[in-house]
Amino acid sequence: MAVQPGRVGIVGLGLIGGSLGLDLQAQGWTVQGLVHRQITADRAMARRLVGTVSTDPRCLADCDVVILALPIPLLLNPPDELVAALPASAVVTDVGSVKQPVLEAWRQRHPRFVASHPMAGTAQAGVDAGVLNLFRGRPWIATPDAQTDPIALDQVRDLALSVGGHWLTSNASQHDQAVALISHMPVLVSAALLRAVGDERDPEIRQLAMVLASSGFADTSRVGGGNPQLGVAMASTNRDAVLRGLAAYRWSLEQLEDAVLQQNWSQLELELLRTQTLRPDFLRAPGGVSSES
Amino acid sequence: MAVQPGRVGIVGLGLIGGSLGLDLQAQGWTVQGLVHRQITADRAMARRLVGTVSTDPRCLADCDVVILALPIPLLLNPPDELVAALPASAVVTDVGSVKQPVLEAWRQRHPRFVASHPMAGTAQAGVDAGVLNLFRGRPWIATPDAQTDPIALDQVRDLALSVGGHWLTSNASQHDQAVALISHMPVLVSAALLRAVGDERDPEIRQLAMVLASSGFADTSRVGGGNPQLGVAMASTNRDAVLRGLAAYRWSLEQLEDAVLQQNWSQLELELLRTQTLRPDFLRAPGGVSSES
Repeated sequence: MAVQPGRVGIVGLGLIGGSLGLDLQAQGWTVQGLVHRQITADRAMARRLVGTVSTDPRCLADCDVVILALPIPLLLNPPDELVAALPASAVVTDVGSVKQPVLEAWRQRHPRFVASHPMAGTAQAGVDAGVLNLFRGRPWIATPDAQTDPIALDQVRDLALSVGGHWLTSNASQHDQAVALISHMPVLVSAALLRAVGDERDPEIRQLAMVLASSGFADTSRVGGGNPQLGVAMASTNRDAVLRGLAAYRWSLEQLEDAVLQQNWSQLELELLRTQTLRPDFLRAPGGVSSES
Repeated sequence: MAVQPGRVGIVGLGLIGGSLGLDLQAQGWTVQGLVHRQITADRAMARRLVGTVSTDPRCLADCDVVILALPIPLLLNPPDELVAALPASAVVTDVGSVKQPVLEAWRQRHPRFVASHPMAGTAQAGVDAGVLNLFRGRPWIATPDAQTDPIALDQVRDLALSVGGHWLTSNASQHDQAVALISHMPVLVSAALLRAVGDERDPEIRQLAMVLASSGFADTSRVGGGNPQLGVAMASTNRDAVLRGLAAYRWSLEQLEDAVLQQNWSQLELELLRTQTLRPDFLRAPGGVSSES
Protein backbone atom coordinates (compact mmCIF):
# COMPACT_ATOMS: atom_id res chain seq x y z
CA MET A 1 0.00 0.00 0.00
CA ALA A 2 1.70 3.17 -1.21
CA VAL A 3 1.68 6.32 0.91
CA GLN A 4 -1.13 8.64 -0.16
CA PRO A 5 0.06 12.16 -0.88
CA GLY A 6 -1.10 14.29 2.01
CA ARG A 7 0.47 17.18 3.87
CA VAL A 8 4.26 17.15 4.21
CA GLY A 9 6.34 19.62 6.20
CA ILE A 10 9.91 20.29 5.09
CA VAL A 11 12.18 21.90 7.67
CA GLY A 12 15.00 23.66 5.85
CA LEU A 13 14.87 24.49 2.13
CA GLY A 14 18.47 24.09 1.01
CA LEU A 15 19.56 21.73 -1.77
CA ILE A 16 17.87 18.63 -0.32
CA GLY A 17 14.83 20.28 1.28
CA GLY A 18 14.15 22.51 -1.71
CA SER A 19 14.52 19.65 -4.19
CA LEU A 20 12.14 17.51 -2.14
CA GLY A 21 9.65 20.40 -2.10
CA LEU A 22 9.67 20.54 -5.89
CA ASP A 23 9.43 16.74 -6.35
CA LEU A 24 6.73 16.18 -3.71
CA GLN A 25 4.51 18.96 -5.08
CA ALA A 26 4.83 17.28 -8.47
CA GLN A 27 3.64 14.05 -6.78
CA GLY A 28 0.53 15.76 -5.47
CA TRP A 29 1.63 16.53 -1.90
CA THR A 30 0.64 19.71 -0.13
CA VAL A 31 4.04 21.04 0.93
CA GLN A 32 4.53 23.26 3.97
CA GLY A 33 8.01 24.77 4.32
CA LEU A 34 9.61 25.91 7.56
CA VAL A 35 12.71 28.11 7.46
CA HIS A 36 14.61 30.28 9.92
CA ARG A 37 14.61 33.63 8.13
CA GLN A 38 11.91 35.59 6.32
CA ILE A 39 14.25 36.38 3.41
CA THR A 40 14.67 32.63 2.79
CA ALA A 41 10.90 32.17 3.04
CA ASP A 42 10.35 34.86 0.40
CA ARG A 43 12.90 33.32 -1.94
CA ALA A 44 11.44 29.82 -1.47
CA MET A 45 7.99 31.13 -2.42
CA ALA A 46 9.40 32.99 -5.43
CA ARG A 47 11.01 29.72 -6.57
CA ARG A 48 7.79 27.75 -5.75
CA LEU A 49 9.80 25.25 -3.74
CA VAL A 50 6.76 24.79 -1.45
CA GLY A 51 3.07 25.60 -1.44
CA THR A 52 3.24 27.64 1.77
CA VAL A 53 6.13 28.62 3.99
CA SER A 54 6.53 30.00 7.48
CA THR A 55 9.21 30.85 10.03
CA ASP A 56 6.93 29.59 12.85
CA PRO A 57 7.30 25.87 13.77
CA ARG A 58 3.58 25.72 14.57
CA CYS A 59 2.96 25.62 10.81
CA LEU A 60 3.77 21.88 11.03
CA ALA A 61 0.63 21.17 13.12
CA ASP A 62 -1.37 19.33 10.47
CA CYS A 63 1.43 17.52 8.67
CA ASP A 64 1.29 13.75 8.05
CA VAL A 65 5.02 13.59 7.35
CA VAL A 66 7.80 15.96 8.42
CA ILE A 67 11.21 15.89 6.74
CA LEU A 68 14.04 17.45 8.73
CA ALA A 69 16.36 18.77 6.00
CA LEU A 70 18.64 20.60 8.41
CA PRO A 71 22.42 20.86 8.68
CA ILE A 72 23.79 18.06 10.90
CA PRO A 73 24.72 20.28 13.90
CA LEU A 74 21.18 21.69 14.04
CA LEU A 75 19.66 18.25 13.48
CA LEU A 76 21.60 16.87 16.46
CA ASN A 77 20.63 19.82 18.68
CA PRO A 78 17.18 20.80 17.47
CA PRO A 79 15.46 23.85 18.95
CA ASP A 80 12.87 22.91 21.59
CA GLU A 81 10.12 24.80 19.74
CA LEU A 82 10.71 22.64 16.68
CA VAL A 83 10.49 19.37 18.63
CA ALA A 84 7.40 20.61 20.45
CA ALA A 85 5.71 21.53 17.18
CA LEU A 86 6.03 18.05 15.60
CA PRO A 87 2.65 16.26 15.62
CA ALA A 88 2.95 12.99 17.60
CA SER A 89 1.10 11.14 14.85
CA ALA A 90 3.33 12.38 12.00
CA VAL A 91 6.08 10.32 10.45
CA VAL A 92 9.31 12.25 11.02
CA THR A 93 12.47 11.60 9.01
CA ASP A 94 15.78 13.32 8.28
CA VAL A 95 18.27 13.49 5.41
CA GLY A 96 21.58 13.65 7.32
CA SER A 97 24.74 11.94 6.10
CA VAL A 98 25.46 10.34 9.51
CA LYS A 99 22.92 8.10 11.11
CA GLN A 100 24.10 6.74 14.49
CA PRO A 101 24.20 10.15 16.24
CA VAL A 102 20.94 11.18 14.56
CA LEU A 103 19.21 8.02 15.79
CA GLU A 104 20.54 8.65 19.29
CA ALA A 105 19.36 12.27 19.24
CA TRP A 106 15.89 11.56 17.85
CA ARG A 107 14.97 8.13 19.27
CA GLN A 108 13.79 9.82 22.48
CA ARG A 109 12.45 12.94 20.80
CA HIS A 110 9.79 11.47 18.54
CA PRO A 111 8.02 8.06 18.55
CA ARG A 112 7.71 7.83 14.76
CA PHE A 113 11.21 8.99 13.78
CA VAL A 114 12.88 7.19 10.86
CA ALA A 115 16.58 7.89 10.22
CA SER A 116 17.24 8.16 6.50
CA HIS A 117 19.82 9.49 4.06
CA PRO A 118 19.21 10.30 0.41
CA MET A 119 22.65 10.19 -1.28
CA ALA A 120 22.17 13.09 -3.65
CA GLY A 121 24.08 16.27 -4.08
CA THR A 122 25.39 18.91 -6.39
CA ALA A 123 28.06 21.55 -5.82
CA GLN A 124 25.28 24.02 -4.96
CA ALA A 125 23.80 24.91 -1.57
CA GLY A 126 21.09 27.18 -0.17
CA VAL A 127 17.58 28.16 -1.16
CA ASP A 128 18.60 28.63 -4.80
CA ALA A 129 20.06 25.12 -5.07
CA GLY A 130 16.92 22.94 -5.14
CA VAL A 131 16.13 21.25 -8.46
CA LEU A 132 13.55 18.78 -9.76
CA ASN A 133 14.48 15.08 -9.97
CA LEU A 134 17.56 15.30 -7.76
CA PHE A 135 16.82 11.89 -6.21
CA ARG A 136 15.99 9.95 -9.37
CA GLY A 137 18.13 6.80 -9.56
CA ARG A 138 20.10 7.76 -6.45
CA PRO A 139 20.42 5.63 -3.30
CA TRP A 140 18.10 6.53 -0.41
CA ILE A 141 19.14 4.55 2.63
CA ALA A 142 17.27 4.18 5.92
CA THR A 143 18.81 2.87 9.13
CA PRO A 144 15.99 1.51 11.28
CA ASP A 145 16.64 0.00 14.71
CA ALA A 146 14.51 -2.19 16.99
CA GLN A 147 12.48 0.82 18.10
CA THR A 148 11.65 2.10 14.62
CA ASP A 149 7.92 2.07 13.81
CA PRO A 150 7.64 -0.32 10.82
CA ILE A 151 4.64 1.53 9.39
CA ALA A 152 6.52 4.84 9.55
CA LEU A 153 9.49 3.13 7.83
CA ASP A 154 7.21 1.93 5.01
CA GLN A 155 5.86 5.42 4.54
CA VAL A 156 9.34 6.91 4.23
CA ARG A 157 10.19 4.15 1.74
CA ASP A 158 7.14 4.94 -0.37
CA LEU A 159 8.00 8.63 -0.31
CA ALA A 160 11.60 7.90 -1.35
CA LEU A 161 10.44 5.61 -4.16
CA SER A 162 7.91 8.19 -5.34
CA VAL A 163 10.71 10.69 -6.07
CA GLY A 164 12.72 8.02 -7.91
CA GLY A 165 15.10 7.00 -5.11
CA HIS A 166 16.81 3.58 -4.98
CA TRP A 167 15.71 2.31 -1.54
CA LEU A 168 18.08 0.47 0.81
CA THR A 169 18.26 -0.22 4.53
CA SER A 170 21.25 -0.99 6.74
CA ASN A 171 22.17 -0.62 10.36
CA ALA A 172 23.31 2.85 11.33
CA SER A 173 26.84 1.88 12.31
CA GLN A 174 27.59 0.13 9.02
CA HIS A 175 26.05 3.06 7.14
CA ASP A 176 28.27 5.53 8.97
CA GLN A 177 31.40 3.46 8.33
CA ALA A 178 30.61 3.08 4.63
CA VAL A 179 29.94 6.80 4.27
CA ALA A 180 33.15 7.61 6.14
CA LEU A 181 35.06 5.52 3.57
CA ILE A 182 33.52 6.93 0.41
CA SER A 183 32.58 10.44 1.44
CA HIS A 184 33.87 11.83 4.74
CA MET A 185 37.44 10.48 4.77
CA PRO A 186 38.01 11.39 1.09
CA VAL A 187 37.32 15.05 1.94
CA LEU A 188 40.41 15.00 4.18
CA VAL A 189 42.46 12.95 1.69
CA SER A 190 41.63 15.49 -0.99
CA ALA A 191 42.15 18.54 1.26
CA ALA A 192 45.57 17.22 2.30
CA LEU A 193 46.59 17.22 -1.37
CA LEU A 194 45.74 20.90 -1.80
CA ARG A 195 47.48 21.66 1.49
CA ALA A 196 50.65 19.78 0.48
CA VAL A 197 50.95 21.62 -2.82
CA GLY A 198 50.07 24.94 -1.18
CA ASP A 199 52.85 24.38 1.37
CA GLU A 200 55.55 23.87 -1.30
CA ARG A 201 58.33 26.24 -0.20
CA ASP A 202 59.96 26.93 -3.57
CA PRO A 203 57.79 29.72 -5.05
CA GLU A 204 58.79 28.82 -8.62
CA ILE A 205 57.71 25.19 -8.17
CA ARG A 206 54.48 26.29 -6.49
CA GLN A 207 53.73 28.73 -9.31
CA LEU A 208 54.54 26.12 -11.95
CA ALA A 209 52.33 23.58 -10.16
CA MET A 210 49.41 26.00 -10.35
CA VAL A 211 49.93 26.66 -14.04
CA LEU A 212 50.42 23.00 -14.93
CA ALA A 213 47.55 21.61 -12.82
CA SER A 214 45.20 19.81 -15.18
CA SER A 215 41.80 18.14 -14.99
CA GLY A 216 43.31 15.23 -13.02
CA PHE A 217 44.34 17.56 -10.21
CA ALA A 218 41.02 19.41 -10.42
CA ASP A 219 39.16 16.13 -9.92
CA THR A 220 41.36 14.78 -7.12
CA SER A 221 41.15 18.07 -5.21
CA ARG A 222 37.44 18.78 -5.73
CA VAL A 223 35.92 17.49 -2.49
CA GLY A 224 38.86 18.86 -0.47
CA GLY A 225 38.07 22.35 -1.76
CA GLY A 226 34.42 22.15 -0.73
CA ASN A 227 32.35 23.70 2.07
CA PRO A 228 34.48 23.82 5.27
CA GLN A 229 31.50 23.73 7.64
CA LEU A 230 30.19 20.60 5.93
CA GLY A 231 33.62 18.97 6.22
CA VAL A 232 33.77 19.76 9.93
CA ALA A 233 30.22 18.48 10.46
CA MET A 234 31.13 15.17 8.78
CA ALA A 235 34.37 14.73 10.72
CA SER A 236 32.94 15.75 14.08
CA THR A 237 29.70 13.73 13.95
CA ASN A 238 31.28 10.63 12.37
CA ARG A 239 34.65 10.94 14.10
CA ASP A 240 35.33 7.29 15.02
CA ALA A 241 34.53 6.00 11.53
CA VAL A 242 36.54 8.83 9.91
CA LEU A 243 39.56 8.05 12.10
CA ARG A 244 39.21 4.36 11.29
CA GLY A 245 39.03 5.24 7.57
CA LEU A 246 42.06 7.51 7.82
CA ALA A 247 44.09 4.77 9.52
CA ALA A 248 43.18 2.34 6.72
CA TYR A 249 44.03 5.01 4.18
CA ARG A 250 47.42 5.80 5.72
CA TRP A 251 48.33 2.11 5.72
CA SER A 252 47.21 1.80 2.11
CA LEU A 253 49.28 4.80 0.98
CA GLU A 254 52.30 3.45 2.85
CA GLN A 255 52.14 0.22 0.83
CA LEU A 256 52.30 2.21 -2.41
CA GLU A 257 55.03 4.50 -1.09
CA ASP A 258 57.01 1.46 -0.02
CA ALA A 259 56.89 0.02 -3.54
CA VAL A 260 58.30 3.33 -4.85
CA LEU A 261 60.97 3.41 -2.13
CA GLN A 262 62.02 -0.18 -2.85
CA GLN A 263 61.84 0.48 -6.59
CA ASN A 264 59.59 -2.56 -6.72
CA TRP A 265 57.94 -1.55 -9.99
CA SER A 266 56.30 -4.89 -10.65
CA GLN A 267 54.62 -4.64 -7.24
CA LEU A 268 53.51 -1.06 -7.95
CA GLU A 269 52.09 -2.17 -11.28
CA LEU A 270 50.12 -4.96 -9.58
CA GLU A 271 48.78 -2.44 -7.06
CA LEU A 272 47.70 -0.02 -9.79
CA LEU A 273 46.17 -2.84 -11.82
CA ARG A 274 44.12 -3.70 -8.75
CA THR A 275 42.91 -0.12 -8.23
CA GLN A 276 42.13 0.15 -11.95
CA THR A 277 40.01 -2.99 -11.60
CA LEU A 278 38.40 -1.85 -8.32
CA ARG A 279 37.18 1.54 -9.47
CA PRO A 280 34.40 0.47 -11.87
CA ASP A 281 32.72 -1.34 -8.95
CA PHE A 282 32.11 2.07 -7.39
CA LEU A 283 30.74 3.61 -10.58
CA ARG A 284 28.38 0.85 -11.61
CA ALA A 285 26.18 1.13 -8.54
CA PRO A 286 23.08 3.37 -8.50
CA GLY A 287 25.06 6.10 -6.79
CA GLY A 288 27.91 5.97 -9.28
CA VAL A 289 28.68 7.86 -12.41
CA SER A 290 27.84 5.08 -14.83
CA SER A 291 28.30 7.21 -17.93
CA GLU A 292 32.08 7.34 -17.46
CA SER A 293 34.28 5.42 -19.86
CA MET B 1 60.47 34.80 -37.27
CA ALA B 2 57.92 32.02 -37.08
CA VAL B 3 58.84 28.50 -38.07
CA GLN B 4 57.83 27.80 -41.68
CA PRO B 5 55.76 24.65 -42.03
CA GLY B 6 58.04 22.08 -43.59
CA ARG B 7 58.45 18.36 -43.06
CA VAL B 8 57.81 17.03 -39.55
CA GLY B 9 58.31 13.47 -38.38
CA ILE B 10 56.19 12.18 -35.53
CA VAL B 11 57.45 9.06 -33.78
CA GLY B 12 54.50 7.34 -32.12
CA LEU B 13 50.89 8.11 -33.00
CA GLY B 14 49.06 7.73 -29.69
CA LEU B 15 46.99 10.50 -28.12
CA ILE B 16 49.72 13.16 -28.26
CA GLY B 17 51.44 12.10 -31.49
CA GLY B 18 48.18 11.53 -33.35
CA SER B 19 46.71 14.85 -32.18
CA LEU B 20 49.88 16.66 -33.27
CA GLY B 21 49.64 14.95 -36.66
CA LEU B 22 46.12 16.30 -37.16
CA ASP B 23 46.95 19.82 -35.94
CA LEU B 24 50.23 20.16 -37.87
CA GLN B 25 48.67 18.97 -41.13
CA ALA B 26 46.01 21.65 -40.60
CA GLN B 27 48.88 24.16 -40.22
CA GLY B 28 50.34 23.20 -43.59
CA TRP B 29 53.07 20.80 -42.45
CA THR B 30 53.95 17.66 -44.36
CA VAL B 31 53.62 15.02 -41.66
CA GLN B 32 55.60 11.77 -41.72
CA GLY B 33 54.54 9.22 -39.09
CA LEU B 34 56.75 6.46 -37.70
CA VAL B 35 55.19 3.61 -35.75
CA HIS B 36 56.25 0.18 -34.59
CA ARG B 37 53.57 -2.03 -36.12
CA GLN B 38 51.99 -2.16 -39.57
CA ILE B 39 48.49 -2.46 -38.11
CA THR B 40 49.00 0.88 -36.32
CA ALA B 41 50.32 2.41 -39.53
CA ASP B 42 47.23 1.27 -41.41
CA ARG B 43 44.90 2.68 -38.77
CA ALA B 44 46.81 5.99 -38.67
CA MET B 45 46.41 6.34 -42.44
CA ALA B 46 42.72 5.44 -42.24
CA ARG B 47 42.27 8.19 -39.61
CA ARG B 48 44.46 10.59 -41.68
CA LEU B 49 46.58 11.34 -38.61
CA VAL B 50 49.58 11.84 -40.93
CA GLY B 51 50.29 12.32 -44.62
CA THR B 52 52.52 9.26 -44.88
CA VAL B 53 53.52 6.63 -42.36
CA SER B 54 56.19 3.95 -42.10
CA THR B 55 57.58 1.37 -39.73
CA ASP B 56 61.12 2.10 -40.97
CA PRO B 57 63.02 4.83 -39.05
CA ARG B 58 64.75 5.86 -42.30
CA CYS B 59 61.48 7.60 -43.26
CA LEU B 60 62.68 10.47 -41.04
CA ALA B 61 65.61 11.27 -43.37
CA ASP B 62 64.28 14.55 -44.80
CA CYS B 63 62.49 15.90 -41.73
CA ASP B 64 63.14 19.45 -40.46
CA VAL B 65 61.60 18.65 -37.09
CA VAL B 66 61.13 15.29 -35.36
CA ILE B 67 58.74 14.92 -32.42
CA LEU B 68 59.33 11.89 -30.22
CA ALA B 69 55.84 11.07 -28.94
CA LEU B 70 56.88 7.81 -27.29
CA PRO B 71 56.07 6.28 -23.90
CA ILE B 72 58.64 7.40 -21.30
CA PRO B 73 60.44 4.02 -20.96
CA LEU B 74 61.03 3.87 -24.72
CA LEU B 75 61.97 7.56 -24.84
CA LEU B 76 64.64 6.97 -22.18
CA ASN B 77 66.01 3.89 -23.96
CA PRO B 78 65.46 4.61 -27.63
CA PRO B 79 66.31 1.94 -30.23
CA ASP B 80 69.69 2.58 -31.89
CA GLU B 81 68.11 2.55 -35.36
CA LEU B 82 65.82 5.40 -34.33
CA VAL B 83 68.68 7.55 -33.01
CA ALA B 84 70.78 6.76 -36.11
CA ALA B 85 67.90 7.78 -38.40
CA LEU B 86 67.48 11.28 -36.94
CA PRO B 87 68.93 13.90 -39.32
CA ALA B 88 71.69 15.85 -37.54
CA SER B 89 70.24 19.11 -38.83
CA ALA B 90 66.68 18.43 -37.61
CA VAL B 91 65.18 19.93 -34.48
CA VAL B 92 64.28 17.00 -32.20
CA THR B 93 61.85 17.34 -29.33
CA ASP B 94 59.78 15.08 -27.07
CA VAL B 95 56.47 15.24 -25.20
CA GLY B 96 57.34 13.32 -22.02
CA SER B 97 55.95 14.23 -18.60
CA VAL B 98 59.38 14.06 -16.91
CA LYS B 99 62.20 16.21 -18.17
CA GLN B 100 65.41 15.69 -16.17
CA PRO B 101 65.90 12.03 -17.19
CA VAL B 102 64.88 12.83 -20.76
CA LEU B 103 67.43 15.65 -20.98
CA GLU B 104 70.09 13.33 -19.60
CA ALA B 105 69.21 10.60 -22.08
CA TRP B 106 69.06 12.84 -25.13
CA ARG B 107 71.67 15.56 -24.49
CA GLN B 108 74.38 13.25 -25.84
CA ARG B 109 72.20 11.62 -28.46
CA HIS B 110 71.28 14.63 -30.59
CA PRO B 111 72.81 18.14 -30.88
CA ARG B 112 69.49 19.91 -31.50
CA PHE B 113 67.36 18.15 -28.89
CA VAL B 114 64.82 20.30 -27.01
CA ALA B 115 63.07 18.77 -23.98
CA SER B 116 59.41 19.75 -23.93
CA HIS B 117 56.11 18.73 -22.39
CA PRO B 118 52.67 19.64 -23.69
CA MET B 119 50.27 19.30 -20.71
CA ALA B 120 47.33 17.85 -22.57
CA GLY B 121 45.43 14.65 -22.11
CA THR B 122 42.16 12.84 -22.21
CA ALA B 123 41.18 9.48 -20.78
CA GLN B 124 41.90 7.92 -24.19
CA ALA B 125 45.10 6.33 -25.47
CA GLY B 126 46.35 4.69 -28.65
CA VAL B 127 46.05 5.33 -32.37
CA ASP B 128 42.31 6.01 -32.07
CA ALA B 129 42.79 8.69 -29.39
CA GLY B 130 44.21 11.60 -31.41
CA VAL B 131 41.90 14.61 -31.87
CA LEU B 132 42.15 18.07 -33.39
CA ASN B 133 42.90 21.04 -31.12
CA LEU B 134 44.05 19.01 -28.12
CA PHE B 135 46.72 21.61 -27.28
CA ARG B 136 44.67 24.77 -27.65
CA GLY B 137 44.91 26.89 -24.49
CA ARG B 138 46.97 24.22 -22.68
CA PRO B 139 50.44 24.75 -21.20
CA TRP B 140 53.39 23.58 -23.31
CA ILE B 141 56.52 23.78 -21.24
CA ALA B 142 60.13 23.42 -22.41
CA THR B 143 63.09 22.81 -20.11
CA PRO B 144 66.20 24.05 -21.91
CA ASP B 145 69.63 23.82 -20.31
CA ALA B 146 72.95 25.52 -21.14
CA GLN B 147 73.55 23.14 -24.03
CA THR B 148 70.16 23.64 -25.71
CA ASP B 149 70.40 25.17 -29.19
CA PRO B 150 68.47 28.49 -28.88
CA ILE B 151 67.34 28.41 -32.50
CA ALA B 152 65.98 24.89 -32.05
CA LEU B 153 64.19 26.07 -28.89
CA ASP B 154 62.58 28.94 -30.83
CA GLN B 155 61.39 26.52 -33.48
CA VAL B 156 59.74 24.25 -30.90
CA ARG B 157 58.12 27.33 -29.34
CA ASP B 158 56.73 28.44 -32.70
CA LEU B 159 55.39 24.96 -33.34
CA ALA B 160 53.75 24.84 -29.89
CA LEU B 161 52.20 28.28 -30.40
CA SER B 162 50.94 27.31 -33.87
CA VAL B 163 48.80 24.54 -32.37
CA GLY B 164 47.44 26.92 -29.72
CA GLY B 165 49.71 25.96 -26.82
CA HIS B 166 50.47 28.32 -23.92
CA TRP B 167 54.30 28.45 -23.97
CA LEU B 168 56.45 28.37 -20.84
CA THR B 169 60.00 27.45 -19.96
CA SER B 170 61.51 26.30 -16.67
CA ASN B 171 64.44 24.27 -15.55
CA ALA B 172 63.97 20.52 -15.74
CA SER B 173 64.27 19.86 -12.02
CA GLN B 174 61.61 22.41 -11.04
CA HIS B 175 59.35 21.10 -13.81
CA ASP B 176 59.69 17.56 -12.52
CA GLN B 177 58.96 18.59 -8.93
CA ALA B 178 55.90 20.61 -9.95
CA VAL B 179 54.56 17.74 -12.06
CA ALA B 180 55.20 15.30 -9.21
CA LEU B 181 53.01 17.49 -6.96
CA ILE B 182 50.07 18.00 -9.29
CA SER B 183 50.13 14.86 -11.40
CA HIS B 184 52.40 11.97 -10.36
CA MET B 185 51.93 11.98 -6.56
CA PRO B 186 48.13 12.46 -6.83
CA VAL B 187 47.93 9.18 -8.77
CA LEU B 188 49.20 7.36 -5.67
CA VAL B 189 47.06 9.45 -3.29
CA SER B 190 44.01 8.56 -5.35
CA ALA B 191 44.97 4.89 -5.80
CA ALA B 192 45.47 4.55 -2.03
CA LEU B 193 41.86 5.65 -1.53
CA LEU B 194 40.53 2.89 -3.80
CA ARG B 195 42.85 0.42 -2.12
CA ALA B 196 41.72 1.41 1.40
CA VAL B 197 38.04 1.00 0.56
CA GLY B 198 38.71 -2.21 -1.35
CA ASP B 199 40.51 -3.61 1.72
CA GLU B 200 37.54 -3.00 4.06
CA ARG B 201 37.09 -6.34 5.81
CA ASP B 202 33.38 -6.14 6.63
CA PRO B 203 31.70 -7.30 3.39
CA GLU B 204 28.48 -5.44 4.25
CA ILE B 205 30.31 -2.14 4.73
CA ARG B 206 32.32 -2.72 1.54
CA GLN B 207 29.16 -3.49 -0.44
CA LEU B 208 27.38 -0.48 1.01
CA ALA B 209 30.38 1.74 0.19
CA MET B 210 30.18 0.64 -3.45
CA VAL B 211 26.46 1.33 -3.65
CA LEU B 212 26.68 4.69 -1.89
CA ALA B 213 29.77 5.99 -3.72
CA SER B 214 28.79 9.21 -5.45
CA SER B 215 30.36 11.66 -7.88
CA GLY B 216 32.69 12.93 -5.14
CA PHE B 217 34.27 9.50 -4.77
CA ALA B 218 34.31 9.04 -8.55
CA ASP B 219 36.29 12.27 -8.91
CA THR B 220 38.72 11.65 -6.04
CA SER B 221 39.47 8.14 -7.30
CA ARG B 222 39.70 8.90 -11.03
CA VAL B 223 43.45 9.24 -11.51
CA GLY B 224 44.12 6.35 -9.13
CA GLY B 225 42.05 4.07 -11.37
CA GLY B 226 43.99 5.01 -14.50
CA ASN B 227 46.57 3.23 -16.66
CA PRO B 228 48.91 1.20 -14.38
CA GLN B 229 51.86 1.31 -16.80
CA LEU B 230 51.63 5.09 -16.98
CA GLY B 231 51.54 5.31 -13.18
CA VAL B 232 54.63 3.13 -12.91
CA ALA B 233 56.43 5.15 -15.60
CA MET B 234 55.72 8.37 -13.68
CA ALA B 235 56.80 6.99 -10.32
CA SER B 236 59.91 5.24 -11.63
CA THR B 237 61.26 8.07 -13.79
CA ASN B 238 60.41 10.86 -11.35
CA ARG B 239 61.03 8.85 -8.19
CA ASP B 240 62.85 11.44 -6.04
CA ALA B 241 60.27 14.15 -6.67
CA VAL B 242 57.39 11.70 -6.14
CA LEU B 243 58.85 10.56 -2.81
CA ARG B 244 59.37 14.18 -1.79
CA GLY B 245 55.76 14.93 -2.73
CA LEU B 246 54.49 11.90 -0.81
CA ALA B 247 56.41 12.97 2.30
CA ALA B 248 54.86 16.45 2.10
CA TYR B 249 51.47 14.84 1.53
CA ARG B 250 51.77 12.50 4.51
CA TRP B 251 52.70 15.41 6.76
CA SER B 252 49.79 17.43 5.44
CA LEU B 253 47.28 14.62 6.04
CA GLU B 254 48.66 14.10 9.55
CA GLN B 255 47.87 17.72 10.41
CA LEU B 256 44.25 17.20 9.41
CA GLU B 257 44.02 13.85 11.16
CA ASP B 258 45.48 15.44 14.28
CA ALA B 259 42.75 18.09 14.32
CA VAL B 260 40.14 15.28 14.16
CA LEU B 261 41.93 13.30 16.90
CA GLN B 262 42.14 16.36 19.17
CA GLN B 263 38.56 17.30 18.31
CA ASN B 264 39.96 20.70 17.41
CA TRP B 265 37.08 21.61 15.12
CA SER B 266 37.94 25.30 14.84
CA GLN B 267 41.42 24.28 13.61
CA LEU B 268 39.92 21.82 11.12
CA GLU B 269 37.58 24.51 9.86
CA LEU B 270 40.52 26.90 9.36
CA GLU B 271 42.36 24.17 7.44
CA LEU B 272 39.37 23.48 5.20
CA LEU B 273 38.80 27.19 4.65
CA ARG B 274 42.40 27.38 3.49
CA THR B 275 42.05 24.49 1.05
CA GLN B 276 38.76 25.94 -0.21
CA THR B 277 40.60 29.20 -0.90
CA LEU B 278 43.65 27.47 -2.42
CA ARG B 279 41.83 25.36 -4.99
CA PRO B 280 40.69 28.09 -7.41
CA ASP B 281 44.37 29.06 -7.89
CA PHE B 282 44.85 25.69 -9.58
CA LEU B 283 41.80 26.04 -11.81
CA ARG B 284 42.34 29.58 -13.03
CA ALA B 285 45.63 28.84 -14.76
CA PRO B 286 45.76 27.88 -18.46
CA GLY B 287 45.99 24.24 -17.50
CA GLY B 288 43.02 24.39 -15.15
CA VAL B 289 39.37 23.70 -15.59
CA SER B 290 38.18 27.29 -15.59
CA SER B 291 34.59 26.46 -16.39
CA GLU B 292 33.98 25.00 -12.90
CA SER B 293 31.87 26.97 -10.48
